Amino acid sequence: MSTKKHPKKIYLPEEEMPKFWYNIVADMPSKPLPPLHPATKEPVGPDDLAPLFPMELIMQEVSQERYIEIPDKVREIYRIWRPSPLIRAYELEKALDTPAKIYYKYEGVSPAGSHKPNTAVAQAFYNHAEGVKKITTETGAGQWGSALSYATQLFDMELQVFMVKVSFYQKPYRKTMMNIWKANTVPSPTDLTEAGRKILAEDPDSPGSLGIAISEAVEIAVQDPQTKYALGSVLNHVLLHQTVIGLEAKKQMEMADAYPDIVIGCFGGGSNFAGISFPFLQDKIKQEKDMRVIAVEPESCPKLTRGEFRYDFGDTIGMTPLIPMFTLGHNFMPPAIHAGGLRYHGAGAIVSQLLKDGIIEAKAVHQLESFEAGVLFARTEGIIPAPESTHAVAQTIREALKAKEQGKETTILFNLSGHGHIDLGAYEKYLEGSIHDYSVTDEQIAENLKVLDEMGFPKA
Amino acid sequence: MSTKKHPKKIYLPEEEMPKFWYNIVADMPSKPLPPLHPATKEPVGPDDLAPLFPMELIMQEVSQERYIEIPDKVREIYRIWRPSPLIRAYELEKALDTPAKIYYKYEGVSPAGSHKPNTAVAQAFYNHAEGVKKITTETGAGQWGSALSYATQLFDMELQVFMVKVSFYQKPYRKTMMNIWKANTVPSPTDLTEAGRKILAEDPDSPGSLGIAISEAVEIAVQDPQTKYALGSVLNHVLLHQTVIGLEAKKQMEMADAYPDIVIGCFGGGSNFAGISFPFLQDKIKQEKDMRVIAVEPESCPKLTRGEFRYDFGDTIGMTPLIPMFTLGHNFMPPAIHAGGLRYHGAGAIVSQLLKDGIIEAKAVHQLESFEAGVLFARTEGIIPAPESTHAVAQTIREALKAKEQGKETTILFNLSGHGHIDLGAYEKYLEGSIHDYSVTDEQIAENLKVLDEMGFPKA
Repeated sequence: MSTKKHPKKIYLPEEEMPKFWYNIVADMPSKPLPPLHPATKEPVGPDDLAPLFPMELIMQEVSQERYIEIPDKVREIYRIWRPSPLIRAYELEKALDTPAKIYYKYEGVSPAGSHKPNTAVAQAFYNHAEGVKKITTETGAGQWGSALSYATQLFDMELQVFMVKVSFYQKPYRKTMMNIWKANTVPSPTDLTEAGRKILAEDPDSPGSLGIAISEAVEIAVQDPQTKYALGSVLNHVLLHQTVIGLEAKKQMEMADAYPDIVIGCFGGGSNFAGISFPFLQDKIKQEKDMRVIAVEPESCPKLTRGEFRYDFGDTIGMTPLIPMFTLGHNFMPPAIHAGGLRYHGAGAIVSQLLKDGIIEAKAVHQLESFEAGVLFARTEGIIPAPESTHAVAQTIREALKAKEQGKETTILFNLSGHGHIDLGAYEKYLEGSIHDYSVTDEQIAENLKVLDEMGFPKA
Repeated sequence: MSTKKHPKKIYLPEEEMPKFWYNIVADMPSKPLPPLHPATKEPVGPDDLAPLFPMELIMQEVSQERYIEIPDKVREIYRIWRPSPLIRAYELEKALDTPAKIYYKYEGVSPAGSHKPNTAVAQAFYNHAEGVKKITTETGAGQWGSALSYATQLFDMELQVFMVKVSFYQKPYRKTMMNIWKANTVPSPTDLTEAGRKILAEDPDSPGSLGIAISEAVEIAVQDPQTKYALGSVLNHVLLHQTVIGLEAKKQMEMADAYPDIVIGCFGGGSNFAGISFPFLQDKIKQEKDMRVIAVEPESCPKLTRGEFRYDFGDTIGMTPLIPMFTLGHNFMPPAIHAGGLRYHGAGAIVSQLLKDGIIEAKAVHQLESFEAGVLFARTEGIIPAPESTHAVAQTIREALKAKEQGKETTILFNLSGHGHIDLGAYEKYLEGSIHDYSVTDEQIAENLKVLDEMGFPKA
């Protein structure tokens, strides 16, 4: 065991933590399409977004600058958990008996246990700098809500979290994390908003959804100039902040004298996937390196593999601008899989464009396969992955087994976006055999997309 | 922010991971007293322990060698999470406005989320090497049971865990971790053993205790030559394995150009406390350095601060040899505080001797103070500590505030023995105000110790 040459964990020194985020828009051969106003179908300008976001984030949302400086204060907070480790999955490789070299970037070391604080801290910083006193947001499984709770309390800001009702009761530990970090968390739909009341009038027992919770959070934010809204994925500025993951990983792969043939991230709205992959895609677009970049979604919410690239709402009720996205339709109600963070109907504008242009690819995984992968990972690498992250593990295992068949030393890098400590209830159900796979029919998808035709939303 | 000179996190390169554990017995001015046979009151020899432990661990239990080599295979597994980070608590220091320099060693990065795998892996290794097929153990809050589950599955051994019944139902997530790692976990007392049946006959609704669970695990182990027993604390060889923590911390403090004036660890049976402190105590005993070394126990289970140093059983029923320990009496039923890992009536032989000789000191903390400390830590340093570890945080805060009063730049090092992700239920109760402090009266303690007089157990 020569640990010096082949360490298991590769730590980047703190002083080498990136000073800039990478904006892939600068290098994209086809730029992402602009968001549109739902009534006029005209591009949305910065002023239209001002009720929701501080101006600095709006400028980042539309920026074409290649590098955007990370504020000193944000870097100071980042170093509480960053740089995160890059780890060589020797134990998993052994179990698979594969010649593939598997590396993973581990974001579970953050306070909230996932990659989400990377953008939560940045968003809290810019809001605070522009005098915002209160932020509203939504959360599904609670990863984003807890990350933003951590961030807003650092800046003494108030936070109201609309948490999807079914998760609120199923994942009490996430709510406790948010309590520790001083957030006010309510189960959505609530009677605090028009949007919530409308849903409750139709279905008093509504389990809620991410789309509904977004509608509620946006509604509260637009009513008060000192209150803004924050989103944990999908938008360009969110993806931008997450590139700190891939920028670190590039330096760490270099320290390991390696470069990935395949980069893999699980896919909900796109933020952890973008985080790990965009800095590598820069090399691919510039034709300096070649690699496969794979977004992995659940079979039960297959927007990338079976959705359509067109304009759609980001939420359920229709409070947001129209976003150019691979979508299953904003009315699509994803089956109740345990990877709550992947239960979202659409993909962000940048990722959708990259997929359309064939620069990235997408795969879908059923939840039984993903939990099986998660358990194997826990037994070998010792880390219990979040249910979302197990999708990336599952695709990594597929590729590692393919490498074995082909006798190739494929180098695979994936993002282990979070740990599963708060999601052990889902593992318990898997182990006792009470979890099953969900399929979505083509008819269901077509049905939902037809609504978009009827609303006259343009194709992208 | 000069991160190069003053990084927040100090990582030891993998190749500098210790190759030897440190055995403090070699340097102790008064050696620890031997365990006694309860009937004959004669010292227990290696052969008496052979039904319970593999011979290599028994030899470590009685060894006076200063350094004991860590097997290559154990080091290979250690590197899955070791060396663990040493972290400077800049954020906590700021919040306390103290001139004290606070460092903490973070053991929550291990698979089970605490320091327990350090000895679990070593014990599994030695048992496996001697052909043992099955191990039995007890667990309270579940930290030890999950650590040993992780370790035994690496060596394809069977594990039966007797988990204190009240925790079994209160902490389902711990049970799930053990399931993921293939252990067979049952709520103790059970009807699988004489000991369990005896307790159930007296009280069918018994919530169980660590002492009872030990009795059950030991009973199963002695019945089958291929089955051995493993303990997660108290014993000399367990403390030995944990010294990897302090050995790493010493090198890391050197990298930070610092040396502690105070070393702090929370105290249940002594393993994490010994782990962080023994390598520093070597310097103190050799009079090369001076420092205060503080063991922190709960006010509700005050064996170090209010117990008596004498021989007592390690378990409740009386299956173990008599151990020389600061004890509250083996019949002492600790109040139901949330730091389950600290609910144990006695301290190990080595730590007890060090306390008697004035080489270390002990402090007690109520649970409200400890949870308050845990919440402040989570809000500043971003890590939610295990309820056990919050006792060390609380004492650290006391010392940091004293340093502030005195205007001294005291350097404090404490062991953050684990994260609290599986214990968020306890934090929820604290935040909603439904946790209170428990006091133990002098009469209660005297009552329990009288039993030892009646049984003729010698004082130490």
